[in-house]
Amino acid sequence: MSQRVQIFDTTLRDGEQVPGSQLTTEEKIIVATQLEKLGVDVIEAGFPISSPGDFRSVVEISKAVREPIICALSRAVTGDIDAAGDALAFAKRGRIHTGIGSSDIHIQHKFNTTREKIIERAIAATKYAKGKVEDVEFYCEDAGRADLVFLAQLVEAVIAAGATVVNIPDTTGYCLPEEYGAKIKYIFENVKGIHNATISIHCHNDLGLATANSLAGIREGARQVEVTMNGIGERAGNTSLEEVVMALNVHKELGYETGVNSQLIYPTSQLVSKMMRMPVQANKAIVGRNAFAHSSGIHQDGHLKNTLNYEIMNPQDVGVDKSDIVLTARSGRHALKHRLELLGFTFEKVILDDLYKKFLDVADLKKEVNDKDLVDLARTVVIA
Amino acid sequence: MSQRVQIFDTTLRDGEQVPGSQLTTEEKIIVATQLEKLGVDVIEAGFPISSPGDFRSVVEISKAVREPIICALSRAVTGDIDAAGDALAFAKRGRIHTGIGSSDIHIQHKFNTTREKIIERAIAATKYAKGKVEDVEFYCEDAGRADLVFLAQLVEAVIAAGATVVNIPDTTGYCLPEEYGAKIKYIFENVKGIHNATISIHCHNDLGLATANSLAGIREGARQVEVTMNGIGERAGNTSLEEVVMALNVHKELGYETGVNSQLIYPTSQLVSKMMRMPVQANKAIVGRNAFAHSSGIHQDGHLKNTLNYEIMNPQDVGVDKSDIVLTARSGRHALKHRLELLGFTFEKVILDDLYKKFLDVADLKKEVNDKDLVDLARTVVIA
Repeated sequence: MSQRVQIFDTTLRDGEQVPGSQLTTEEKIIVATQLEKLGVDVIEAGFPISSPGDFRSVVEISKAVREPIICALSRAVTGDIDAAGDALAFAKRGRIHTGIGSSDIHIQHKFNTTREKIIERAIAATKYAKGKVEDVEFYCEDAGRADLVFLAQLVEAVIAAGATVVNIPDTTGYCLPEEYGAKIKYIFENVKGIHNATISIHCHNDLGLATANSLAGIREGARQVEVTMNGIGERAGNTSLEEVVMALNVHKELGYETGVNSQLIYPTSQLVSKMMRMPVQANKAIVGRNAFAHSSGIHQDGHLKNTLNYEIMNPQDVGVDKSDIVLTARSGRHALKHRLELLGFTFEKVILDDLYKKFLDVADLKKEVNDKDLVDLARTVVIA
Repeated sequence: MSQRVQIFDTTLRDGEQVPGSQLTTEEKIIVATQLEKLGVDVIEAGFPISSPGDFRSVVEISKAVREPIICALSRAVTGDIDAAGDALAFAKRGRIHTGIGSSDIHIQHKFNTTREKIIERAIAATKYAKGKVEDVEFYCEDAGRADLVFLAQLVEAVIAAGATVVNIPDTTGYCLPEEYGAKIKYIFENVKGIHNATISIHCHNDLGLATANSLAGIREGARQVEVTMNGIGERAGNTSLEEVVMALNVHKELGYETGVNSQLIYPTSQLVSKMMRMPVQANKAIVGRNAFAHSSGIHQDGHLKNTLNYEIMNPQDVGVDKSDIVLTARSGRHALKHRLELLGFTFEKVILDDLYKKFLDVADLKKEVNDKDLVDLARTVVIA
């Protein structure tokens, strides 16, 4: 029996912080709806105190998306938590994500305080958030560089205060996999009441180790992993949803599963890349243009003899299907409708008829219409 | 005392196989010269049997680059090895890299043969290559999926036949870090004569784990790591040079060092990206446009209080220096010359004077001239 790992998607919060990637509320709803179809368990929809736009986005996503938990970020201060609670008023299942720095570097240089005061503020924030919603996640910022004994005390304190999920972020992307895994192991072995909460992992990719660190955390007992589509996010970005999900799928012997429909990974990647203006490099794992391309003669020959020679997963498993991706002027309304739906766009017949005319114009010009062109086309309707 | 890990750069071989990334011999010499300045230990310069152009590139790089070992790829057949040996005739220190499939999938589906015959062919190829050069590296293709006991027998056989380096590639990017590390550990514990050769690791990034796998291999005793600049290469690419080098630099407690001058990482990344037409995504670790950008309010505030709050390395350590990167119409000849040299271009005064005029034209048009513009500018001279 596989154990279920919850996928917490923060594309619309940590991902959306990236310069130039800001989305309107309407665009965020499109992405959130697609993430729901993809099968993520939690959508972090924004940081309501940070701006009226972010507040409104959390409200509207809460109304539009009903299956995943909708999560709102806050610092460990009452004003932030009030805003998060208010923004989640319409959520079927809302979660407040609050927290504070846990490393001595952050405690001393950012908060100018002591470990004892940090624990007091953490408990107070957790209890205050519990007054707003039942589901409270607490983040121990910069846990990757925090003192282990203190980190365990902090985790224990917020679980006792009612946190349902505790997030152990490697905020600066510093940890090595064995180090991060050992951190999670230590927490499981040293925190009283550890089984009253889910431990969550949130890694950054500054050294290219986010996926390995996340897998190490899962192995040691974490059952929620925080990710973004295409690995976008602060600096070198967050853990890539597609890499963690496919590593668990390819390595079934590990015994974990997620709720993600992997066949929607590629269209979702294209949607996010285009909407957020963050091109995916050709050699990006899973979702890059070349991820399934065999270019050298040796590889092409081996690949033709047997796809097993150079492939550990089937491109179709992640929604890459060459025969499917490229539409031409010969493609019908039905093919257009199908591909747009995979990309997150559902339109009424009358709008689709209009779009189909525009599509034919593009197809005449370009001969082949790819997913990026389709997102552009669909946005002319949505954004208008 | 840190132990030295050799950096084997295959940007010009595994990296150059990527569709659309092919370089002329003249362009390859520019990249190879820059890799020499960067401080790599080995440059894999091409696969001479594959085309006259590749053959010529290995010849010319052998003449132009004198410090690193120049390596030429071949399959385990005499024609390939002859071509590799001939192409290396001018190398100060040449290495032939030969090998054959080692997984049962490759042995059965690609070579249609048996394990016994594979060992015979491996020994024959190694001995034949030793007749050409002293330094022979043997690759056990698809070692990531090979049977461990057989893999150890193969490694032992080629070391006995004279291989100086044995490469254990995870050709399909399949392995998990602990699995790959265990493979290297098993080889060290079970191969007679293991200390007569260097064990090399060569990982692919299909699941986003190439850097973690490489670090796991180094920890278990491998002392050469095969990498490419920006992680370019087949499918999702190879291990990124910049990620492995900086992970070892940031984690000095691991006790490893390389010969790489990290301050040339960013300019080299820009040169390779531009010359090979492989854009680097903004959130690429170490070398992406946003890798050192702090965008959220929380992060900017923390960063201003103390850069330690969100940075585990100094951007200047990898050659990212905002004040240095952008030249304007106010920049002088000396600034232009300095930045061009960091990017791998050294010109005589008369050419530089001409380039400076062109630079001023571009600067007038664009206001800010970045590294990509400079590579374009320099190429107008080099390629002309």
